[in-house]
Amino acid sequence: MPTVYLTSPPDAAAEIAETLLEERLAACVNRLPSESIYRWDGEIQREAEAILLAKTTDEAYDDLVSRVQDVHPHEVPCIERFDEDNVLESFATWRAENVD
Amino acid sequence: MPTVYLTSPPDAAAEIAETLLEERLAACVNRLPSESIYRWDGEIQREAEAILLAKTTDEAYDDLVSRVQDVHPHEVPCIERFDEDNVLESFATWRAENVD
Amino acid sequence: MPTVYLTSPPDAAAEIAETLLEERLAACVNRLPSESIYRWDGEIQREAEAILLAKTTDEAYDDLVSRVQDVHPHEVPCIERFDEDNVLESFATWRAENVD
Repeated sequence: MPTVYLTSPPDAAAEIAETLLEERLAACVNRLPSESIYRWDGEIQREAEAILLAKTTDEAYDDLVSRVQDVHPHEVPCIERFDEDNVLESFATWRAENVD
Repeated sequence: MPTVYLTSPPDAAAEIAETLLEERLAACVNRLPSESIYRWDGEIQREAEAILLAKTTDEAYDDLVSRVQDVHPHEVPCIERFDEDNVLESFATWRAENVD
Repeated sequence: MPTVYLTSPPDAAAEIAETLLEERLAACVNRLPSESIYRWDGEIQREAEAILLAKTTDEAYDDLVSRVQDVHPHEVPCIERFDEDNVLESFATWRAENVD
């Protein structure tokens, strides 16, 4: 099952997480504070960013990605998928029951 | 080698990490503060959670999972395994030496 | 494409991230605060650590690892590679354009 790694400006992160939960695209989202450094238009940028780790299912993944693109303030958001190599079965069952 | 992704109430996280170290089920545990949103009993819940990233070995993984279930306050804890695709050899050696 | 998972003493983390950006070994680095517990010389150690998540390319990975070893204050730093299972195409393109 996928964990989707997203980054977002801190003030947009809660809304993204709420949207994914309200629309049953993720069973849970963990939101972490971070400091990011990256290149944009050839310049190095330094700013606070939230990292969101959204737990979803294979079936919901594509819809989750397109919904994030709808609500994300960035033109080119970081959206990456990491599949776990094992998971506690009861957690996997709960997760599948809470994602459409 | 596995990194085990766990979430826990903040006040239980240190004890889980200490148990894994004391019992040599992990060589190290990184503990991060996060805000979580998830569905439980049909309601959306929002609360602080700790994320624990435990570095262990293939051989110790199953024991680590069952030990976390023993000490974790949740009925259905998030316990996921992510295997790295490469690791600095000296770190892998240190890790194997510190896990039984 | 790889995400490189690094840990570092908090006061060395910004310099490691800046080096990877300046030398175009990573397109971005997310830096997170954490508490770590680990075994060193047989004793359990507890201290604050930064986690760095560096987004790079297959081609730049080996150079990134050796450069981190150059600048990292630890003898045996945690350097692990996690390859994503999927990524938003525009983000992958941006990333490749910003890593040499």
